[in-house]
Amino acid sequence: MGIFRIGIAGIGIMGTFHADAITSGAIQGAKLAAICDSSAELLGKSRSRYGEQVAYYGSAEEMMTSGEIDGILVATPHYDHPQLAIQAFAHGLHVLIEKPAGVYTKNVREMNEAAKASGKVFAIMYNQRLNPMYQKLRELIESGELGEIRRTNWIVTNWYRTQSYYNMGSWRATWKGEGGGVLINQCPHQLDLWHWTTLLTPKRIRAHCQFGKHRSIEVENEVTAYVEYENGASGVFVTSTAESPGTNRFEVAGSRGKIVIENGKMSFSQLRQSESEFNAACTNPFGSPECWNIDIPVPPGDGPQHKGILQNWTNAVLNGEPLIAPGQEGIHGLMLSNAMLLSTWTDQWVDFPIDEERFYNELQQRIRMSESRQEAVR
Amino acid sequence: MGIFRIGIAGIGIMGTFHADAITSGAIQGAKLAAICDSSAELLGKSRSRYGEQVAYYGSAEEMMTSGEIDGILVATPHYDHPQLAIQAFAHGLHVLIEKPAGVYTKNVREMNEAAKASGKVFAIMYNQRLNPMYQKLRELIESGELGEIRRTNWIVTNWYRTQSYYNMGSWRATWKGEGGGVLINQCPHQLDLWHWTTLLTPKRIRAHCQFGKHRSIEVENEVTAYVEYENGASGVFVTSTAESPGTNRFEVAGSRGKIVIENGKMSFSQLRQSESEFNAACTNPFGSPECWNIDIPVPPGDGPQHKGILQNWTNAVLNGEPLIAPGQEGIHGLMLSNAMLLSTWTDQWVDFPIDEERFYNELQQRIRMSESRQEAVR
Repeated sequence: MGIFRIGIAGIGIMGTFHADAITSGAIQGAKLAAICDSSAELLGKSRSRYGEQVAYYGSAEEMMTSGEIDGILVATPHYDHPQLAIQAFAHGLHVLIEKPAGVYTKNVREMNEAAKASGKVFAIMYNQRLNPMYQKLRELIESGELGEIRRTNWIVTNWYRTQSYYNMGSWRATWKGEGGGVLINQCPHQLDLWHWTTLLTPKRIRAHCQFGKHRSIEVENEVTAYVEYENGASGVFVTSTAESPGTNRFEVAGSRGKIVIENGKMSFSQLRQSESEFNAACTNPFGSPECWNIDIPVPPGDGPQHKGILQNWTNAVLNGEPLIAPGQEGIHGLMLSNAMLLSTWTDQWVDFPIDEERFYNELQQRIRMSESRQEAVR
Repeated sequence: MGIFRIGIAGIGIMGTFHADAITSGAIQGAKLAAICDSSAELLGKSRSRYGEQVAYYGSAEEMMTSGEIDGILVATPHYDHPQLAIQAFAHGLHVLIEKPAGVYTKNVREMNEAAKASGKVFAIMYNQRLNPMYQKLRELIESGELGEIRRTNWIVTNWYRTQSYYNMGSWRATWKGEGGGVLINQCPHQLDLWHWTTLLTPKRIRAHCQFGKHRSIEVENEVTAYVEYENGASGVFVTSTAESPGTNRFEVAGSRGKIVIENGKMSFSQLRQSESEFNAACTNPFGSPECWNIDIPVPPGDGPQHKGILQNWTNAVLNGEPLIAPGQEGIHGLMLSNAMLLSTWTDQWVDFPIDEERFYNELQQRIRMSESRQEAVR
């Protein structure tokens, strides 16, 4: 295969964004071969935009069986991601899904199994993994500079959204339309990065979601979650869409010091000796390890972002390049999100891995209750 | 009364510190009249230090009934504060207690009732209330500059203590000796300030204490607590004694912006219009209120601290000056501390005001279990 022929499923805001990237020639080796959408209006707009070089289909099935594409980029609403990916694997296509991986882990797990069985290249649009800041953090942790992680704390409350944002579409911020609020819509990147940079999976989680805080919506828009990791470390995650100006501060404390990312800068307070060694040897009751305050140099900017993931997916298909964001890893961030809701709904701890059936059933209850409200909003 | 004659109960590290302050002449209108301690050795040292101008007693009762003092400064171990204060009020003395107010709210409440009945001047050594930084924060909140509080977050993990610190005394960091760990020994000031600066009392709390984390002690030395306030706001408090270098960052978000205290600086991100008003009028889905980043000028230094509280107590007795830290307010911070332990022990929410009997009984259980360990430590 000399050229990787991509079909885009769903030509809304993100689908169009990706189509522009491919047709601009920015993705070497890739070609936009087809677009599908159930909306004739959106298809018409796309035809005017991209011309007859691209094939247009009214359904994903038609596009998948057309023989015109080698891979599919799924940019539909959240709920459809797993089902479309499974369908695509069945048709022997490579898949790149937009985040989140889905709304609940039950069918995301099925998607992952289908991906594995197919042997196709499966990626997820975790473009923030290409942000030099988070790459550096992961590198510092992986290389042992921070020692063993003791505590994490991410306050990411700079997702300010007005009521007019929620009023844009009746599907927004509803259980039926999106399956959640700030966790499923705004935070998938941070939930992935929290896991991806620290290399830690929680053992259990206790979370407190607040629903419709200062906004007329039914889903969560403020969350505080506490996690305990397998190694005994603890962590906190705080997010909100109703706070202005928000905070975005990620702190990771380890046995060799502390890293803080805030305001586009990374500060590393590094101990010359690990805290454990110092403590074992110290005879001064009020002594503390020698600490160096270091400004870690990080390349400016956000990195290649979406285009970088598209190029990596293309290279993985054409040349076997390792994936930056394997699709199977989408379940980690989603499980954090599901666990935070489930802990709130049950008012209890949630152990990892979560009870997928229980989350699914609890979500279905809320979807059923959300219908009448949906009508009212319309 | 021209001169306020003070007796100090307990002449350990803090008692000596206060005695030095009074005998140095730094406290106008006050005189160190007496000292009591059950340790003949400590009394002997004090006699050499302060001479025969001061009376020395082997028991608090003797000192209280001597007729030599008008007020008592209680600087004994935590457990004794309420009982000594109650005894002093019965003898018609004014009282200043060191922090914490006590170990459990049950007898602190009794102390507060005795204080009220006595009509005497009752203060607590909350010297951090004189820190210009926290005074400014309280002033900004009280005057409405920050609007209605939406979220608080205090990470105060810069209480690094080595194992050698805990090994200094067999009573340290035991249920029997101190009645707790970082919450009762290191954090009383922050727990008071969290309440005093924000003017908020939690409705309920869900906390996660970790006991003997990276240290061979039985009490809590790392805590993450989540609170919900009456007005719907949420809050987080994180502390640790095993982290180096720790963090001390206090963030308060309100409807008019956000204040952050960190590294000796106060930053105020102030909205020109309240978030609620902006949201109600905004038609741009991704709009956000205009925000001004302001460095709030705060007088340098920590303020008059302990001497300031001593002077204020003296002035209150001599001239009726209003108290900066009325003794009755010690119960607020202690109740937060008790609630965090109780929530961990019961693995449940704790509603405010807490069930004092339950906390007391749970603590007694741990004191009984802690005895054998105590012996082993000796």
